Amino acid sequence: MSSVKHKILVLSGKGGVGKSTFTAHLARGLARDENTQVAVLDIDICGPSIPRVMGLEGEQVHQSGSGWSPVYVEDNLSVMSVGFLLSSPDDAVIWRGPKKNGLIKQFLRDVDWGDTDYLIVDTPPGTSDEHLSIVQYLSCTNVDGAVLVTTPQEISLMDVRKEINFCQKVNLPILGVVENMSGFVCPKCKNESHIFPPTTGGAEKMADDLKIPFLGKLPLDPRIGKCCDEGTSFFEEVPDSPATQSYLSIISKLRKYCQKDGQTESSMDCS
Amino acid sequence: MSSVKHKILVLSGKGGVGKSTFTAHLARGLARDENTQVAVLDIDICGPSIPRVMGLEGEQVHQSGSGWSPVYVEDNLSVMSVGFLLSSPDDAVIWRGPKKNGLIKQFLRDVDWGDTDYLIVDTPPGTSDEHLSIVQYLSCTNVDGAVLVTTPQEISLMDVRKEINFCQKVNLPILGVVENMSGFVCPKCKNESHIFPPTTGGAEKMADDLKIPFLGKLPLDPRIGKCCDEGTSFFEEVPDSPATQSYLSIISKLRKYCQKDGQTESSMDCS
Repeated sequence: MSSVKHKILVLSGKGGVGKSTFTAHLARGLARDENTQVAVLDIDICGPSIPRVMGLEGEQVHQSGSGWSPVYVEDNLSVMSVGFLLSSPDDAVIWRGPKKNGLIKQFLRDVDWGDTDYLIVDTPPGTSDEHLSIVQYLSCTNVDGAVLVTTPQEISLMDVRKEINFCQKVNLPILGVVENMSGFVCPKCKNESHIFPPTTGGAEKMADDLKIPFLGKLPLDPRIGKCCDEGTSFFEEVPDSPATQSYLSIISKLRKYCQKDGQTESSMDCS
Repeated sequence: MSSVKHKILVLSGKGGVGKSTFTAHLARGLARDENTQVAVLDIDICGPSIPRVMGLEGEQVHQSGSGWSPVYVEDNLSVMSVGFLLSSPDDAVIWRGPKKNGLIKQFLRDVDWGDTDYLIVDTPPGTSDEHLSIVQYLSCTNVDGAVLVTTPQEISLMDVRKEINFCQKVNLPILGVVENMSGFVCPKCKNESHIFPPTTGGAEKMADDLKIPFLGKLPLDPRIGKCCDEGTSFFEEVPDSPATQSYLSIISKLRKYCQKDGQTESSMDCS
């Protein structure tokens, strides 16, 4: 991991809030600069969505002298996921914790990550084996921190608060909170609906209350889901959409944070 | 568990597709018949949403001579969740697999479920510890089967196919598939949008392809999310909505299936 400059974990607490979608867009956004080497590690062992979202379904991992080779989307964007190790995409990975932890360790140790500027780690929902393991295995490296993704409704914020509690307990810096699926603009009449209503003030208020940076809101746009299903880049398909602008603004904030923080050591314990 | 007649697992594969929302509505719908005793067991240890969704946040479990008492929503509707064991709702449950499995065993063995007609089990996303444990611990009892909840887009169907693969591998009967968040009707112009587009045909086509019963579609209705955040019953708040009608139709199908199947033994191995 010494050749990997920045490491960002994408966490949420609750599932289905758009972690993998955000991870994919963050990676694609950072990789728009062709001098930036970006890698994505998907540690959602039982539900790996990253291969599909990044248009890599059916790809396989290759073994080389320097370890497992990740799969490349572009010259400067590589991906590793358990999805590349399955014989069929419908195969369930029915594994208990220790086996999942073993694979995560292998992903970090045996994959030839090469010189990477940003490693984005997509995680499953919750605060269990995968989360403890990745934090533990990365604890002696310089982890920039975690981005927390949520939807506006209280039922999702509840789980994000748990995730914040987790980050504090394991000394993982929080880079900020992103609110996904914030509003839906009817394509016919342009009326905006809150499909997932922010009954308790949404993520911005929560971030404010808890003194955590709020990175921005991403609107619900069916074209995002469509691009994810098809594995295409939303930035290329719909470059002028409000969602693209929001993504780029969030990515720019994260890049600045990492570059500012790049030279300082992480506050994580190396135990 | 011998006093519990019917046991239904709610599974999804992917998170955030509405498992807890569906579980709560299934339970509330069955409990509309006051002669039916319904219980909900939430085995999402790291992200327990059920207490909030059922309006029970802040409640505690009581210990009695016959074990842990579940928390009651109504006389005929009781709930057990790790959420009732936490000192604060923001506390993260940072547990690896074995500890989670231990609690699930306790929930099944030490909770005073009494005479229950339907036990609905809400599960976390994935196919790991919690899923293996609940299936294993219930394997000698008569489990009716699993309801699989999904959203229409391929990225969610992919994970449901894994869940189907899981059910087949562990010999868990599949009661059927429910498609949630199927379409959104703009409250202003009544135009219907597919927020999560069914790019590969949606759940109905998948169920048809895989020869699994399709139970029905549930529309996206922001009032459902609002009721869940507030812990109120959507059936009581908006009794005449299309979503209520869809829910009741699905619940009626499940009730019929369970009653028909009630006298026959489950096909699961008792090993």
